[in-house]
Amino acid sequence: MIMNTIIDALNWRYATKKFDPNKKVSKDDMDTLIESLRLSPSSFGLQPRKFIHVTTSEIREQLQANSRGQPQITEASDLLVIATKTNLQASDVEEYGESIMQTRKTNEPISEGDIAKALEYKAMMINTISSRTQEQLKGRNQKQAYIAMGVLLTVCASMGIDACPMEGFDPVKYDEILGLNDLWLTATVVIPVGYRAEDDKYANAPKVRYAKEKLIITK
Amino acid sequence: MIMNTIIDALNWRYATKKFDPNKKVSKDDMDTLIESLRLSPSSFGLQPRKFIHVTTSEIREQLQANSRGQPQITEASDLLVIATKTNLQASDVEEYGESIMQTRKTNEPISEGDIAKALEYKAMMINTISSRTQEQLKGRNQKQAYIAMGVLLTVCASMGIDACPMEGFDPVKYDEILGLNDLWLTATVVIPVGYRAEDDKYANAPKVRYAKEKLIITK
Repeated sequence: MIMNTIIDALNWRYATKKFDPNKKVSKDDMDTLIESLRLSPSSFGLQPRKFIHVTTSEIREQLQANSRGQPQITEASDLLVIATKTNLQASDVEEYGESIMQTRKTNEPISEGDIAKALEYKAMMINTISSRTQEQLKGRNQKQAYIAMGVLLTVCASMGIDACPMEGFDPVKYDEILGLNDLWLTATVVIPVGYRAEDDKYANAPKVRYAKEKLIITK
Repeated sequence: MIMNTIIDALNWRYATKKFDPNKKVSKDDMDTLIESLRLSPSSFGLQPRKFIHVTTSEIREQLQANSRGQPQITEASDLLVIATKTNLQASDVEEYGESIMQTRKTNEPISEGDIAKALEYKAMMINTISSRTQEQLKGRNQKQAYIAMGVLLTVCASMGIDACPMEGFDPVKYDEILGLNDLWLTATVVIPVGYRAEDDKYANAPKVRYAKEKLIITK
């Protein structure tokens, strides 16, 4: 389905209550969704989140049992989980700096001014991380997961793919089932993606949003 | 600019360091951006955030002075601020319930089962809010601001409009300057939007993202 405009797409989307278990998202489209997650922005560019594509039926059933039994977990075509880092630290800034150098390597000489600026920026990032507790950093990292979710939901809508963002799950159990503790990650949001069932009665219900007058302030 | 694919658009976008102060986003395009914010999803649909479109130059200058002087605050075509509620409470659930009834009003009789389900859902929402401190709710509401930011950045990219998400500002000062305290709101993210300056050296720098192998886990 091609949307005429991005606004049509955002109006079309909704938190899908009932997926058609027989309609599968193509491999190419899943690659696009996953690439949109990878490209999603994050604070300082540190990308303190990873994306789990759960394809094994048994695992999806275990997760469903820890998601208030919500049917979308097993009925949607695919299941995505966004997990955030639980041990962000100075070495992540170092690694990111390496990544910048690898990606943007150049044969041209870099000016002393630019080197000084980069080092100053790096020190600022390390200072920002070091001055916060892991609990504060967890909150900060989770926000980056929500940016990625906003990107994903918009991309899904633009492609006519349905999704249902979910917070109603047990993150401790998810972390166990998905082996995230060993990776210093914790499950933050869960997003089944696929295609709405024809008889999902919420599919055609008018979208509920407050009026522009209530939500937008002009200064 | 029309992007061939949403992935092209996401690759094209970057946190714009230098905007062209002479290129303005059209009124129609600003309406689209603001509508995309209004349509952005939120937990339970409660929409605990508002969007401030700052158009007054003097206010933008005051904000810039409280944003580490970052030039984008005054040089970008338009300035958007996402603010989140600081007093989410049971009455917000009541108001949202009213909004659902107004939007989806029907002349058909509603079954007793559906009424019971709606009341159960409402009780669950109120319980979720009541069982958390305002500090916990603030974190929760801020996440909804980040979803909206993810939506906005994707919509901007799809329309060839540049943006620069910013967290480096003084929210206390922002709240004062924008009069947000009286509205029980606090500034959460700031997003100048417009068009990149031709000489922004970051515009053509390759995007830095970790490889798929590092960010994507398949289970």
